[in-house]
Amino acid sequence: MNDLFLRAVRGEDTARAPIWLMRQAGRHLPEYRKLKETHAFWELARTPELAAEVTLQPVRRYGMDAAILFQDIMTPLPAMGIEIDFAPGPVIRAPIRTADDVARLHEPEAEAIAPFVGDAIRLLRRELKVPLIGFGGAPLTLATYLVEGSGSKEYPTFRGLLRAEPEVAHALLRRLTRVSADYLKAQVAAGAQAIQLFDSWAGLHDEATYRTFGLPYARAVLDELAATGVPRLYVAIGASHLLDAFAELPLEALSLDWRTPLDAARSRVGDRVRALQGNLDPAELLGPTDRVRAEALRVLREGRGGAHVFNLGHGMLPAVDPSRVEALVETVRGFDRHAPEDPGA
Amino acid sequence: MNDLFLRAVRGEDTARAPIWLMRQAGRHLPEYRKLKETHAFWELARTPELAAEVTLQPVRRYGMDAAILFQDIMTPLPAMGIEIDFAPGPVIRAPIRTADDVARLHEPEAEAIAPFVGDAIRLLRRELKVPLIGFGGAPLTLATYLVEGSGSKEYPTFRGLLRAEPEVAHALLRRLTRVSADYLKAQVAAGAQAIQLFDSWAGLHDEATYRTFGLPYARAVLDELAATGVPRLYVAIGASHLLDAFAELPLEALSLDWRTPLDAARSRVGDRVRALQGNLDPAELLGPTDRVRAEALRVLREGRGGAHVFNLGHGMLPAVDPSRVEALVETVRGFDRHAPEDPGA
Repeated sequence: MNDLFLRAVRGEDTARAPIWLMRQAGRHLPEYRKLKETHAFWELARTPELAAEVTLQPVRRYGMDAAILFQDIMTPLPAMGIEIDFAPGPVIRAPIRTADDVARLHEPEAEAIAPFVGDAIRLLRRELKVPLIGFGGAPLTLATYLVEGSGSKEYPTFRGLLRAEPEVAHALLRRLTRVSADYLKAQVAAGAQAIQLFDSWAGLHDEATYRTFGLPYARAVLDELAATGVPRLYVAIGASHLLDAFAELPLEALSLDWRTPLDAARSRVGDRVRALQGNLDPAELLGPTDRVRAEALRVLREGRGGAHVFNLGHGMLPAVDPSRVEALVETVRGFDRHAPEDPGA
Repeated sequence: MNDLFLRAVRGEDTARAPIWLMRQAGRHLPEYRKLKETHAFWELARTPELAAEVTLQPVRRYGMDAAILFQDIMTPLPAMGIEIDFAPGPVIRAPIRTADDVARLHEPEAEAIAPFVGDAIRLLRRELKVPLIGFGGAPLTLATYLVEGSGSKEYPTFRGLLRAEPEVAHALLRRLTRVSADYLKAQVAAGAQAIQLFDSWAGLHDEATYRTFGLPYARAVLDELAATGVPRLYVAIGASHLLDAFAELPLEALSLDWRTPLDAARSRVGDRVRALQGNLDPAELLGPTDRVRAEALRVLREGRGGAHVFNLGHGMLPAVDPSRVEALVETVRGFDRHAPEDPGA
């Protein structure tokens, strides 16, 4: 068992940085695209053997130090009575915008939320020699999609609702907190060895708004996970202005996007966060191999001085050529974090 | 002539903050929507009488302290041979992605770029009792659209091109710098009394990438405007991580979005920038009137301690009710920036 990821995420300043990549499963992989030709997204996600296969593909091909479950942050929501299509981003057939809409949401029993996910996790744990990361969306980010109805640059309907109908927003966030916590605890019960909470769109908001509608609900979910003992990771995008608030969350590792240098973040959050994860710009994997290596080394150097899990700053882009990922993994594996810094580097 | 805006933008710590709002013209206004029923966007933009009328509408209705020209940042680009539709965001019929695509772009004479804009400006100067702000897109932001082909959450094609074909990107940015500078100088020659450079998507990039592809070209455009003597404003969205770079630009006023508090920004940029503009979250105008007033007062208080132009942190949203804008304008007008701070406030 390769436990490098688990040691780093718990705060060990490992000699080598473990590497896995957000969205490593799916999208860019030829073997995934082949499966996609004959299976729609929900079919892949809801068939444990297929979800497990897609989860394993990048681990097999690249030798990643962790696997992340193939699912979507929308996975637990149909159990609440919400119908979601992928086109390719999530589209909510009936967006949630009123107190009645919230009241109509189902309150599923924990085991009924997404039983196929537990099945996939159990299959995976039999196969995997690296840790399996479970994940879910944070309440704020799930609510962003549910209110807006689909992806958007700035989610104006949702941001408007926070001002016009804050009680509707809080009622929705409470429901999502309950379902998210149950869903993630079920993942751990089935065998997930770490949980990453995606609060992708937290960065849309100023700090006061995040502290009202984001932080308390993310904290509640993470608090419920504390008793499971698995390490908790948290990721937001375009959120460098919220670092101080994030450092108050009960988590082991904070994932940063490419706009916040790891060394600057480390000096801001200090020892309030045990480990940092990130933060190569996913667009670097669209460039030449030499540049991929050089930028990976820059990130690795910035990550020194504490625990670091190497990752992208956001999800892998579909246009990435696997040869770039291979070069990236090789570079990260070859970097000794404890070697004396080369003054010429 | 109400010159409050011009005094503040040049650095005067005025007793009252001038107010205008990005996208004040168009979108949310009933009188604009009426015009839009019978005229397509390009027809409004290219007919000087109509562009002037739309520019005047919010000044008339709300008594704004400045007018901003009704146009789009795409306005100068058709003169380069680029075909643009609005659906409703800009869609580039043939995105620019290769050296050949760049080489094929026309190099228009300054006076041929958008002569209708000069005509509109001359009409407006006869009518207006407040300063007229001209504007354009910064080269980085124009290139973002031209390469991606349409709006996007994260512009992966453009960010990939910066890595895979940096020389193509630089060649495109050089062309856009020439056209933007000529276009904006023509606006000043026709009577624009200030220029705002929109670098809306600068915040997508980490600081090193912005310093390579964004800052030099924005600086070149702003430098060419220096000789005109009009004040220069610069605005980016989601870019709090780039504040130090922005403070190096040759500009009079920096516009901030709602995620960077004005007081924090002022202590970071110090006296490298004469005036700050911003930064109410546009979503606040979708909330109740009492809250609009309270949030406006918060922004006004944070804006003390130097020159402040009151504005939104980004463009007005189409769903805004004019009564909220009225309450906002009234609140800003009634706030004495030099009164002793109420300790209970």
